[in-house]
Amino acid sequence: MSGVVALAGGVGGAKLAQGLYQVLPPDALTMLVNTADDFTLHGLRICPDLDTVLYTLAGRANAQTGWGLAGDTFATLAMLTRYGAEGTWFQIGDADFATHLIRTQRLAAGAPLSAVMATLAQALDVRAHLLPMCETPVATMVDTPAGLLPFQEYFVQRHHSDVVHDLAFTGIEAAQPPAALAGRLQTARAVVFCPSNPLVSIGPILAVPGLRAAIQACPAPRVAVSPIVGGKALRGPADQMLAGLGHEVSAYGVARLYAGLIDGLVIDTADAALAGRIGALGLAVEVAPTVMRQDADRRALAETVLAFAARLPRPAA
Amino acid sequence: MSGVVALAGGVGGAKLAQGLYQVLPPDALTMLVNTADDFTLHGLRICPDLDTVLYTLAGRANAQTGWGLAGDTFATLAMLTRYGAEGTWFQIGDADFATHLIRTQRLAAGAPLSAVMATLAQALDVRAHLLPMCETPVATMVDTPAGLLPFQEYFVQRHHSDVVHDLAFTGIEAAQPPAALAGRLQTARAVVFCPSNPLVSIGPILAVPGLRAAIQACPAPRVAVSPIVGGKALRGPADQMLAGLGHEVSAYGVARLYAGLIDGLVIDTADAALAGRIGALGLAVEVAPTVMRQDADRRALAETVLAFAARLPRPAA
Repeated sequence: MSGVVALAGGVGGAKLAQGLYQVLPPDALTMLVNTADDFTLHGLRICPDLDTVLYTLAGRANAQTGWGLAGDTFATLAMLTRYGAEGTWFQIGDADFATHLIRTQRLAAGAPLSAVMATLAQALDVRAHLLPMCETPVATMVDTPAGLLPFQEYFVQRHHSDVVHDLAFTGIEAAQPPAALAGRLQTARAVVFCPSNPLVSIGPILAVPGLRAAIQACPAPRVAVSPIVGGKALRGPADQMLAGLGHEVSAYGVARLYAGLIDGLVIDTADAALAGRIGALGLAVEVAPTVMRQDADRRALAETVLAFAARLPRPAA
Repeated sequence: MSGVVALAGGVGGAKLAQGLYQVLPPDALTMLVNTADDFTLHGLRICPDLDTVLYTLAGRANAQTGWGLAGDTFATLAMLTRYGAEGTWFQIGDADFATHLIRTQRLAAGAPLSAVMATLAQALDVRAHLLPMCETPVATMVDTPAGLLPFQEYFVQRHHSDVVHDLAFTGIEAAQPPAALAGRLQTARAVVFCPSNPLVSIGPILAVPGLRAAIQACPAPRVAVSPIVGGKALRGPADQMLAGLGHEVSAYGVARLYAGLIDGLVIDTADAALAGRIGALGLAVEVAPTVMRQDADRRALAETVLAFAARLPRPAA
């Protein structure tokens, strides 16, 4: 009962993941990562969230951007641009290309994505378990006034500036939770929802058929960290998206989205006034600093989350 | 009747190609390039000879190595090595990877290799026509005491140190000359065999069914430049290969290999004594400096070759 299963998207989630990885025994952390942002570009399969978590846990993430590899160069991209390639608005560094090359080649040879990520993690000395939310392709489609956009086109190319009317996860019906997940949930001491976008990072994970039920049935306490602080997303378009889709843009709005799936919510000290409303949903509430500016913040929040979970009555108890 | 069709492999051939490109009107040069060295690595289709000719004509070749792009970096390869990828003994630079990415993607989308190379050439402002010897994959296999080796394994990984017992061009039966070649040969003022390896660079080109006959039927004079000078190959294993396969390691040995296909042979001043024996094969002989150390040498040899061809009686006359 020593493992932790954490659900995460990209940059925001990876920060807490790194904190958890540092305060837990190295192989105790299982990351269940969104793959609905994945796409194919330059003929390569790109998994932005898995790679952000991988690079972050490896201590190799670019600290300025949060994504990509620290110190990476962009010679391949410059030459692709010279050749008139499409999609060069998506920044891929030279060393980063190696990740996509290896992955694409091994997937083409029939390896499941989870096995590919395990190999990459091992090569980068990452002992946490990186599980994609499923092995088969799922694609988030964003319905906007400009039309139905593939996620990266909405998010990167158009700088998430479009109003979001609706979201769809193409391929989700055929998706299945990764084989290793059930065992990890069974022996976990906590399930953590990282402060990732609840709609397009955690949302697709929970939309994998069977996954929501598996988390509901899990004997370990389940806690989330609100990605909304003071009514704003710390990063990315979660706030606009919540508003666009009719949710309250607050930690309370997040609590309502996760109601029935979590036992407790960590909210920022700035949102302490929301504790009562969130408690009324039947959730335990922990008020703590949640903004992770430095490594120490990541570890501190991880400790807070684990201590909070340890205090919660186990659902099965 | 102003065009020139030149047959070439990689580095040695590309030097003369650059000379020809500089002394001819830009769109007058058609390069017919060996593709039997091509292979697939990291899931990408790599065409070493085509790319060497492309980069050389674009003025972007690495002057030290002859292959690859000047000033290229190797971050992708370093990361692939970190991941334990196979084939990292084959040096691919970061910008060079872009060429292979674009090519692989467009081939997968159904474009013929000739069309892909035309697009790349245009992007690099190369106005010469780059024709692969055929559109379909052909692979040189090298029979050695260590077994039957794929060409790049023999050439790069094992530093062409094995004795060569035999050569085979897998896939050659299905190969067809590129569609544009017949017209180019019909209107050429000369056909030039660049000083490339006669066995593994020019050999596969001539082995494409129909291609030898097309060159024999061509109305333009056909001249070759010997890649053997003073009994040695200026570059690569042509000398050892010729010896291993029972050929004389000299410009005379080259002349015998090309007999019936060429009207004249340019030999180096160091080999002037061979002129009589070569002439006895029914070939015109031009003695000139053929070692290309600098750009000026490339242009001078190109002028020599073209002037020599212009003096030769046309086979059809």
